[in-house]
Amino acid sequence: MIKDRIAVFDSGLGGLTAVRELFSVLPRENIVYFGDTARVPYGTRSVDLIRRFARQDLEFLLQYEPKAVLVACGTMSAVALEDLRTMTDVPVIGVVSPAAQAAAKATRNGKIGILGTAATIQSGAYEAEIRSLRPVEVISRSCPLFVPLVENGYVGRESIAYSVALDYTALLREAGVDTVILGCTHYPLLRPLLGEIFGENVVLVDSGREGALELANVLYRQNLQTQKPFATEHLYFVTDEVDHFTQLAGMFLNSNLEGKVRKVEIG
Amino acid sequence: MIKDRIAVFDSGLGGLTAVRELFSVLPRENIVYFGDTARVPYGTRSVDLIRRFARQDLEFLLQYEPKAVLVACGTMSAVALEDLRTMTDVPVIGVVSPAAQAAAKATRNGKIGILGTAATIQSGAYEAEIRSLRPVEVISRSCPLFVPLVENGYVGRESIAYSVALDYTALLREAGVDTVILGCTHYPLLRPLLGEIFGENVVLVDSGREGALELANVLYRQNLQTQKPFATEHLYFVTDEVDHFTQLAGMFLNSNLEGKVRKVEIG
Repeated sequence: MIKDRIAVFDSGLGGLTAVRELFSVLPRENIVYFGDTARVPYGTRSVDLIRRFARQDLEFLLQYEPKAVLVACGTMSAVALEDLRTMTDVPVIGVVSPAAQAAAKATRNGKIGILGTAATIQSGAYEAEIRSLRPVEVISRSCPLFVPLVENGYVGRESIAYSVALDYTALLREAGVDTVILGCTHYPLLRPLLGEIFGENVVLVDSGREGALELANVLYRQNLQTQKPFATEHLYFVTDEVDHFTQLAGMFLNSNLEGKVRKVEIG
Repeated sequence: MIKDRIAVFDSGLGGLTAVRELFSVLPRENIVYFGDTARVPYGTRSVDLIRRFARQDLEFLLQYEPKAVLVACGTMSAVALEDLRTMTDVPVIGVVSPAAQAAAKATRNGKIGILGTAATIQSGAYEAEIRSLRPVEVISRSCPLFVPLVENGYVGRESIAYSVALDYTALLREAGVDTVILGCTHYPLLRPLLGEIFGENVVLVDSGREGALELANVLYRQNLQTQKPFATEHLYFVTDEVDHFTQLAGMFLNSNLEGKVRKVEIG
């Protein structure tokens, strides 16, 4: 029974965008979510530290004996995925490779933009993955303020998120990209804003969504889907206080998490 | 000998603005600095967590048996100072009270603005301190993005820091404040920008500087000044990688910290 869960984790709220997709494509699966809100953001930290945090996060989740793991974080997927895979025998899915594949398929003019955290962009992970699939032009931009913006609930058109987003997207718009990877799972929360800025002719690839679809594929291929008729209980853990997370999370998931989120200490 | 040090700490780089002031007012003192760069920022986290982090930070520094401690962080000074004072018998100086005193003295029109982190503004600490001194109008604004901006080196006129700063200062400017407390030790790094935005008739009170002056006063009153003719060795510790910190720190302190910063694990 307990081995029937899907574990999902992120530095904070962002991974919930992938959970939302999982609810939609795998509505019968039980999920255990972990957000390291005490140490968010990860994407401006060093690779060594991100790897250490990532290992601690997964270690916590492995207590729940998941049947598959979704690293719902662009930063950890970009720099720590191989590390994490050594810790368990169950499938560990990141968001980089699925998003890169979706972008390589989507582009018509061969110009792909990548928005990600500093660590993600520096790693070159998305770029390498895309170029292994197709020879395209890739324009990358690190957006160190997007995670703080989202974690603080600034996602609206009227907020300072707008001027920050204008700045971060300038090079991509000038280059005329027709496809943009939202390379961090926090960024879909800025999607309305980014959609307005890029216009309707630019495809925005949601890395969390692509990761969730890939996980659904893996469950299907490995015959790991649940036999239960419906999801019975999702678990949510965070490392800082529950209230702030519950409030914002409910908004993003369109469901009320009141009383369902627990605080834990790790590391 | 070892009991002759001044300990200074912050969540990251910001406290260095107070160190710079200490170098100027107490050039003969040896300093041990700690910046918790692995967990920065603090100001968007819960009060409980900030207190836990603060205790861990001070615990680390107490190994160096300091003769006085400067909490060079607006957030910890606002919510954790009493906690920290129970941990040691040596003087523990925060930045809130000294900055509030300076602002109460400086204002001519009785309108004081306060810029601080979310936790600092929510605590009402500066406001309470000022009102205990003088009946004035206080306009507060939390600036959750300023610390990420500074920690990532965005402090220039041409950077997105400018549009963010315009937004954060709007209410204060509309209210016609003539004095503004830079209530977080990161903010003096945005001083050129903020000075330009507020104009030369507005006094900007640097909380780190006021904290440093207060610490110098306390050493003098308690006869704790060093007997050494000059400072022999400053120590710098951080919790994430050394390179990024060294680079930015050198810029802020106007001295080269290459090879002088060490990485430690705490908590």
